[in-house]
Amino acid sequence: MKQTIKAGIVGGTGYTGVELLRLLVQHPHVELSAITSRGEAGTPVADMFPSLRGRCPLRFETPDAAGLEKCDVVFFATPNGVAMQQAPALLDAGARVVDLSADFRISDIAEWEKWYGMKHASPEWVAKAVYGLPEANREEIRSARLLANPGCYPTAVQLGLLPLVETGCVDLEHLIADAKSGVSGAGRKAEVHTLFSEASDNFKAYGVPGHRHLPEILQGLTRTARAHGVQQRLGLTFVPHLTPMIRGMCATMYARIGDERDFQSLFESRYADEAFVDVMPPKAHPETRSVRAANLCRIAVHRPQNGDTLVILSVIDNLMKGAAGQAIQNMNIMYGFEEQTGLCQLPVLP
Amino acid sequence: MKQTIKAGIVGGTGYTGVELLRLLVQHPHVELSAITSRGEAGTPVADMFPSLRGRCPLRFETPDAAGLEKCDVVFFATPNGVAMQQAPALLDAGARVVDLSADFRISDIAEWEKWYGMKHASPEWVAKAVYGLPEANREEIRSARLLANPGCYPTAVQLGLLPLVETGCVDLEHLIADAKSGVSGAGRKAEVHTLFSEASDNFKAYGVPGHRHLPEILQGLTRTARAHGVQQRLGLTFVPHLTPMIRGMCATMYARIGDERDFQSLFESRYADEAFVDVMPPKAHPETRSVRAANLCRIAVHRPQNGDTLVILSVIDNLMKGAAGQAIQNMNIMYGFEEQTGLCQLPVLP
Amino acid sequence: MKQTIKAGIVGGTGYTGVELLRLLVQHPHVELSAITSRGEAGTPVADMFPSLRGRCPLRFETPDAAGLEKCDVVFFATPNGVAMQQAPALLDAGARVVDLSADFRISDIAEWEKWYGMKHASPEWVAKAVYGLPEANREEIRSARLLANPGCYPTAVQLGLLPLVETGCVDLEHLIADAKSGVSGAGRKAEVHTLFSEASDNFKAYGVPGHRHLPEILQGLTRTARAHGVQQRLGLTFVPHLTPMIRGMCATMYARIGDERDFQSLFESRYADEAFVDVMPPKAHPETRSVRAANLCRIAVHRPQNGDTLVILSVIDNLMKGAAGQAIQNMNIMYGFEEQTGLCQLPVLP
Amino acid sequence: MKQTIKAGIVGGTGYTGVELLRLLVQHPHVELSAITSRGEAGTPVADMFPSLRGRCPLRFETPDAAGLEKCDVVFFATPNGVAMQQAPALLDAGARVVDLSADFRISDIAEWEKWYGMKHASPEWVAKAVYGLPEANREEIRSARLLANPGCYPTAVQLGLLPLVETGCVDLEHLIADAKSGVSGAGRKAEVHTLFSEASDNFKAYGVPGHRHLPEILQGLTRTARAHGVQQRLGLTFVPHLTPMIRGMCATMYARIGDERDFQSLFESRYADEAFVDVMPPKAHPETRSVRAANLCRIAVHRPQNGDTLVILSVIDNLMKGAAGQAIQNMNIMYGFEEQTGLCQLPVLP
Repeated sequence: MKQTIKAGIVGGTGYTGVELLRLLVQHPHVELSAITSRGEAGTPVADMFPSLRGRCPLRFETPDAAGLEKCDVVFFATPNGVAMQQAPALLDAGARVVDLSADFRISDIAEWEKWYGMKHASPEWVAKAVYGLPEANREEIRSARLLANPGCYPTAVQLGLLPLVETGCVDLEHLIADAKSGVSGAGRKAEVHTLFSEASDNFKAYGVPGHRHLPEILQGLTRTARAHGVQQRLGLTFVPHLTPMIRGMCATMYARIGDERDFQSLFESRYADEAFVDVMPPKAHPETRSVRAANLCRIAVHRPQNGDTLVILSVIDNLMKGAAGQAIQNMNIMYGFEEQTGLCQLPVLP
Repeated sequence: MKQTIKAGIVGGTGYTGVELLRLLVQHPHVELSAITSRGEAGTPVADMFPSLRGRCPLRFETPDAAGLEKCDVVFFATPNGVAMQQAPALLDAGARVVDLSADFRISDIAEWEKWYGMKHASPEWVAKAVYGLPEANREEIRSARLLANPGCYPTAVQLGLLPLVETGCVDLEHLIADAKSGVSGAGRKAEVHTLFSEASDNFKAYGVPGHRHLPEILQGLTRTARAHGVQQRLGLTFVPHLTPMIRGMCATMYARIGDERDFQSLFESRYADEAFVDVMPPKAHPETRSVRAANLCRIAVHRPQNGDTLVILSVIDNLMKGAAGQAIQNMNIMYGFEEQTGLCQLPVLP
Repeated sequence: MKQTIKAGIVGGTGYTGVELLRLLVQHPHVELSAITSRGEAGTPVADMFPSLRGRCPLRFETPDAAGLEKCDVVFFATPNGVAMQQAPALLDAGARVVDLSADFRISDIAEWEKWYGMKHASPEWVAKAVYGLPEANREEIRSARLLANPGCYPTAVQLGLLPLVETGCVDLEHLIADAKSGVSGAGRKAEVHTLFSEASDNFKAYGVPGHRHLPEILQGLTRTARAHGVQQRLGLTFVPHLTPMIRGMCATMYARIGDERDFQSLFESRYADEAFVDVMPPKAHPETRSVRAANLCRIAVHRPQNGDTLVILSVIDNLMKGAAGQAIQNMNIMYGFEEQTGLCQLPVLP
Repeated sequence: MKQTIKAGIVGGTGYTGVELLRLLVQHPHVELSAITSRGEAGTPVADMFPSLRGRCPLRFETPDAAGLEKCDVVFFATPNGVAMQQAPALLDAGARVVDLSADFRISDIAEWEKWYGMKHASPEWVAKAVYGLPEANREEIRSARLLANPGCYPTAVQLGLLPLVETGCVDLEHLIADAKSGVSGAGRKAEVHTLFSEASDNFKAYGVPGHRHLPEILQGLTRTARAHGVQQRLGLTFVPHLTPMIRGMCATMYARIGDERDFQSLFESRYADEAFVDVMPPKAHPETRSVRAANLCRIAVHRPQNGDTLVILSVIDNLMKGAAGQAIQNMNIMYGFEEQTGLCQLPVLP
């Protein structure tokens, strides 16, 4: 089981790409074989990301020249719409695929097409894809050939709501998730709204009329509910915000209590065996920096003034537990490695 | 009516103090006579705040030496617990007082003492104080001798909820306000948690079990409801967060719809005559920087997926409409000046 | 003389554009008539810059439709290479032009073409243009028809070195200027290197082999030296750095002392009559925030350990004294308005 | 040689303390035995630094109770003046000490007392202490009992100047170091000037009349020069600046060329065998984030316009190569561990 696998990355010029590189370069069971970028073919990876100087000898290659089909596992860190085009050939060639984009996350093709504004190129692989939130469906992940790695908001929100949804102890039809993301969540594209001079010293909500992560969250929570025999209808008001920090995500969730219980214990026991979820003590306020650069979700459970509304706080690093870290966690599960392998970095604070 | 009044400031070494100075120095009807600070007595104001070099010739003085009783109006920009000790003597001497601290905001003395952890020194003046949210109670402000200037969260939240509370068209018992503040809201005290290296590149909730601004908001909203004949019980879950920016506050509010109506129009007509509240067009997302350094509240009204939950976004500059700007607005009303006098600064963007 | 002039802006979608708008909207002698942007024609200015909602009713227009030739003064806030194409026609039509780009700053056409990488379209107007650093050449500015507004680095560096260059009291051949700029200096273009996630929590030098502002600074200092009868050869090592703040610029300058004198007095007397230059007391360390959003340069003079090297600190807001504020100052001089008109904003601190 | 050593930390509540903890918890040859703090005795370390939850079971202890004398190595991460009081007893008990404060850095006791404003408590140990800049004096470090870990500015500046000083090829009497530090360099003390609202969106020089790191740098460079037979007098103008980022330091150094040579090659060959110094290619501009959270110094060598002035850029993470990382590097050398042990973290970017 302690073999070494060959890994490739498609589209490694974004933030999830460079974070994957940081993790894979240090992973003891992975040989990083190839990384592709049409636009940067020929450029040494360390020229684009000087943080990797001396640690990553690869150059970006064109997809054709990279020999990805010889990899055991290929990560897609591409914009939406690319993996659905290129992953099937690699899968047919025998590689396993971890897709960090949204292409295979939503089972309902029509719903996906509505939110992502394009026709899906590979509905048949959507049906075979496994959604990779290990804390919700670890067993399915083990045998996944095509793994759909969750979005950052869906990770933070689902981990914060899973124990409530599994038990049906709150009003599931009127859940509220008020989420705040660091700017790296918007990617490394040159756009005005994420310029330093626009996003710094500023705070705003966005996507209030509708955000692509809403159907993904609802699908995940509904599956979880049904798997636990909970039949309530689910509804979620989801409001994302942009906050002036590089990494980090905080979801503040509100749920009206239905059945009384000890909610702190509910969360603690639910996540007792999870290495990457930390339920903090009562009255705690998790900070995003307490998980910076680490594959962790920290959660706190509050019931203000002992009223009828629960407040759940959930923080992650959007590039780690919200993207690349979770992808490695999924890879570890898929290949039977110890789940924490290569993911023991301590958070960087301050 | 276009006379000039003499103004004094007690406790001008904090952020609301220096913001008051910025505004008063430029106000055409104000002569700034004195500013006190026990700790800094003798220091030229411009030595502490070099932004004022050449524009403010005053020195900090001890309260005894400052001659505040000869001022027409005295602003308290002090920590909680100071104004209730010192304001009564000035009021008795004939000055009018604008208190930017919390000492006179809560009518229920027991409630105030519970949240602020001290015995109130001047309950009789609490009964005479006027709460200064001009958009809610402008008429009372005109004749106020002691004005209790609202807190920053209470300003952003109340302005976002006033039209709903006045009409009772939502479930008032289960209101939710998820609020995010820039770090200057914590003041200019030397404390670890607001150090740059702690608060930068970080996001967190705080005070979830209970925050002092909760009773102030509930009192304000309840008064408004009752004044409009709305008898519903009011309840609010209020969660403040610290966001890494200097100035700015965004409150995201959630309310379950009771009676249907055109909510956009409701807000537009409610604030049509208010110079300092801007209801933005449908689907807008106000940014905190769009009000930076200006006395403004911008509001947007959303109803995601046409569901049963309203989302109200409200942004202010916590030091302006949330503190010093509103204090000047109240002063203008109290002295019969044009309400916008000295408050026409355009927001500083970027 | 207290007339009102009509002003137009070409290219108002960048940061110098919106800063000009902020200043012109509040200027008592200016009627803002037109603002052009090919890309945004038809868009209300306040839609792009919500900070201007309710304060600027203009829409962006195409250059053809805007009627700029009917303006008294036209500001170019365009990328380099535009003003040299469009300004001559406006000048011929009788408008006066203030160009905030670099097109008319360098008298030596070959030198300009080398640094800016294009052929100059209007050498004849370069010869007629007046360089607009009021503290160096106020008299020429009064009658300028085409004013070349200085760059931000050249403003901070020249103001810090003028007294030394005019007196020739230091080794002018080996001047060093180590300058640090906020990110807004790079403009509002969508580029990767100025994204929040790239520029935040980061510091770097750039352009060390050569930066376009070097020849502009050398030209300005050389003219000043010669005008004061100083014949030393001038040489400058100029290293710009990018620092993670929106606005602000700090130039730290090093000069080897030649002739002894009281350098503090030299600076104080040189700038005694300048409204926008503040020489701070000995041992002071000016902060960029002490001039944030204001048209000011603050300077401190140091001689560490009483050695043979002077250290001059000079801070400005790059969008104000480094761009739009200085443009308004120049306009005031050109039209005989009081030089401080519309430029009395107090710095915004914090 | 691959034994495990017991380590203790005195004063672990600051930023160098928590960074030491992050590194020691993950070091394969270290057992972390004790950490002291008078003020926090009894508090679990993970309560103060939630980033360590689940990874560090220690509690802060009083110095008396901690049993530090049983440690193999004790790190002092204390304010200046503490180690000189407490280290001698531990040294006498047989422990080796790595002092991250300034107590043992300066050999000249009178000079130290002048800059640090107190009487030195242990001059005899100053004489025995070894200055721990491995790239300059690795051999001495191997047998050090008391190691004086360099300051952050001295590390960045000395590494940038060593090759020039060792060869005497520049004017050593007029060196200039213009250095910029992130705010964590000021420590985790509650002080007004490092509050987020003071230090954010701001840039300033400080300590221009004289900074404590100046004599440390001069001592280090002079020793290096003399050890290489270079007899020039050394002089340095050193100007530190505060820049709004948490971690990171950039020193920009200026030196007048004396003897011509290929300076790029000089630097490359000088550092060819150093694991923690990276000489970048010609025309490179190292960014502080390229070393964030890693024990690295990246250097670039420039000669603008092929003139007579060299510009050297040197970046480090002030808490890593500038403090805790270098301390671990020194510990590795002292105990004969592979020098890179526990220091292979990749920089965190973005």
